[in-house]
Amino acid sequence: MNMKAAVMLAAGQPLVVESVELASPKANEVLVKIVATGVCHSDYNALHDETTPVPTILGHEGAGIVVEVGSQVKTVKVGDRVALSWVPYCGTCECCQTGKVNLCESAFGPMFAGTLLDGTSRLSRGGQTVYHNSLLSTFAEYAVVPEMSCVKLPEGMPLIQASLIGCGVATGYGAAVRAARVEPGSYVAVFGIGGVGVNAIQGARICGASRIIACDVKEKNLEIAKRFGATHTVNVSTVDAAEAIRELTDGHGVHAAIDCSGSTAAAQSAWKATRKGGTTVVVGAFPSHKELTLPAGGFHRMGKTLKGSFYGDVNPFREFPIIARLYLEGKFQLDELVLDRIPLEDINKAFASFEDRDAVNVGRTVVVLGGDGA
Amino acid sequence: MNMKAAVMLAAGQPLVVESVELASPKANEVLVKIVATGVCHSDYNALHDETTPVPTILGHEGAGIVVEVGSQVKTVKVGDRVALSWVPYCGTCECCQTGKVNLCESAFGPMFAGTLLDGTSRLSRGGQTVYHNSLLSTFAEYAVVPEMSCVKLPEGMPLIQASLIGCGVATGYGAAVRAARVEPGSYVAVFGIGGVGVNAIQGARICGASRIIACDVKEKNLEIAKRFGATHTVNVSTVDAAEAIRELTDGHGVHAAIDCSGSTAAAQSAWKATRKGGTTVVVGAFPSHKELTLPAGGFHRMGKTLKGSFYGDVNPFREFPIIARLYLEGKFQLDELVLDRIPLEDINKAFASFEDRDAVNVGRTVVVLGGDGA
Repeated sequence: MNMKAAVMLAAGQPLVVESVELASPKANEVLVKIVATGVCHSDYNALHDETTPVPTILGHEGAGIVVEVGSQVKTVKVGDRVALSWVPYCGTCECCQTGKVNLCESAFGPMFAGTLLDGTSRLSRGGQTVYHNSLLSTFAEYAVVPEMSCVKLPEGMPLIQASLIGCGVATGYGAAVRAARVEPGSYVAVFGIGGVGVNAIQGARICGASRIIACDVKEKNLEIAKRFGATHTVNVSTVDAAEAIRELTDGHGVHAAIDCSGSTAAAQSAWKATRKGGTTVVVGAFPSHKELTLPAGGFHRMGKTLKGSFYGDVNPFREFPIIARLYLEGKFQLDELVLDRIPLEDINKAFASFEDRDAVNVGRTVVVLGGDGA
Repeated sequence: MNMKAAVMLAAGQPLVVESVELASPKANEVLVKIVATGVCHSDYNALHDETTPVPTILGHEGAGIVVEVGSQVKTVKVGDRVALSWVPYCGTCECCQTGKVNLCESAFGPMFAGTLLDGTSRLSRGGQTVYHNSLLSTFAEYAVVPEMSCVKLPEGMPLIQASLIGCGVATGYGAAVRAARVEPGSYVAVFGIGGVGVNAIQGARICGASRIIACDVKEKNLEIAKRFGATHTVNVSTVDAAEAIRELTDGHGVHAAIDCSGSTAAAQSAWKATRKGGTTVVVGAFPSHKELTLPAGGFHRMGKTLKGSFYGDVNPFREFPIIARLYLEGKFQLDELVLDRIPLEDINKAFASFEDRDAVNVGRTVVVLGGDGA
């Protein structure tokens, strides 16, 4: 079929909205009509990455309606409303067998190759291959995606809000709820208040944390953090974060610190701000050439835990519907994460904000493609 | 009462065996006739530490028979055979309330002050105070200790073997069983083959690990590791440990790495040798001025966990009897850890081996004070 899509032709150049060809789904694939898709900072990074295979269609968080299913598809049917996951897991590798489906390797090869799970593409343009992105490519009217990327939503879940669940929302929420296992009455610090951090704050709030300390270099972000549940804020550009946090927590530090910043310095502060027996979760991606340095004195005696967490340790099939239900029950804020709604034709405007150092990017510009269910 | 004890009079000087005075146990204390006590490397360190309060009686691992109990003591009675713990926990602090009794702070103040839990001493010599050590002071015929340091042993448990349970045995075993939660069929690496490391190996063996890779700089220690259950050895002075371990584990690394070495370089290797989703446990004490440096690239994506573990995450009241039972069932090797048996008069000989770089210190010289039950 022909469809309208925003095509990345070369690194650093604006996306071009034009018609591309989409082949039918194979046996374990699903054709989804995309209703809404968020524009993530990772899309901006991919757009400026010379190693991104081109031409490609970016976009890895979205929601839509199932239009056609492959012959082997069992978990969704035509008409189902789904949120998309960019970590389709195999179910059979060691990570999957031990419940760590978020660490499944199956998606990584295709992700870097720009294909679907079988190593081929369903996208083309004038007879030439167009690459997939993150196995989804949601900046388009339709997408052919793996069955394991399609998570059925509870009835009544609006798809604009649902479109945000699959990336920063799941990662942040999961970092607090699954990776850090925040407990009622506990003290939590969240470093890095962006699209992931505010949802870590929401996760901590929903878990019943007593104090949620937002830490960031930008005063604007700290103000926003309060709207999502932060009870205290620390501007880490003006004070020693670990010390400030200890002052806010009876001198002992937090039970759980969640670093969403991608900064090793912040992660070090998060570790130092964690109390005896507590847990520090690193969910942000550090620059690959860096090192994380921790004080060695008393390391064993503090009994602390440091965890790397990918995709918030979530299983999308368990977590996406839970997040949707929490939204429908008024417990999880998604409306506040929708910063703007734009048509596909305006998508390049969404990238401009990432270049503005003063812009607040806590939330998403959502591209609304329309159709029922939006 | 008067008793014979090995007294440390000054840092670096040999212990002097002489008569000291021991007061009766207070309400929550117990008088124990010491039957056997192991000489730990920590005793050697304390003997050479200018900050150790003197005069003092060292010794923090031992077993004996209850001779008298204070008025409030409920958990042991006269005649009970007990192994001693140097982490008596309060039961009411946050760490205790959350099941992390090994992190209870109650013992630390008295430990550094050289007293019992109430801040006073039961030991004296010619009318002058003699300090306790680690709340136990087992290099003596008798000791007054906190009730929470007395763990009743199962019937038939010989006290010479039991005397070793309370320090390196519990710490190493617990590091594998409780902190790392080693699973059947899994791959485990243990760094640092000493009094703790061999027991981490034993813990991994008892948990049913398929491969147990012992890592050390001394070939002699690696040979000994095999007697305790190591299936493979890596001499870290000759090869890149993480790389060698990956070669022994299908290229992926171990599910659990346990660092008992106290070396940050070894801990870094342990971390690098841990596979995706795996756990690295640090049970060794690093030098306080050092830093632990970990590669930052892919940190979140590997989903690994790094845990500091004090006293092997054990609760002595649960774990000591389990270890004793495992010994009685022939599953845990304690006989092999008793390197030598000496009378109290010869205790200074036990320290000599710590000064010999070629000596093998995997195990303990046990001071046997005699009496029934030895």
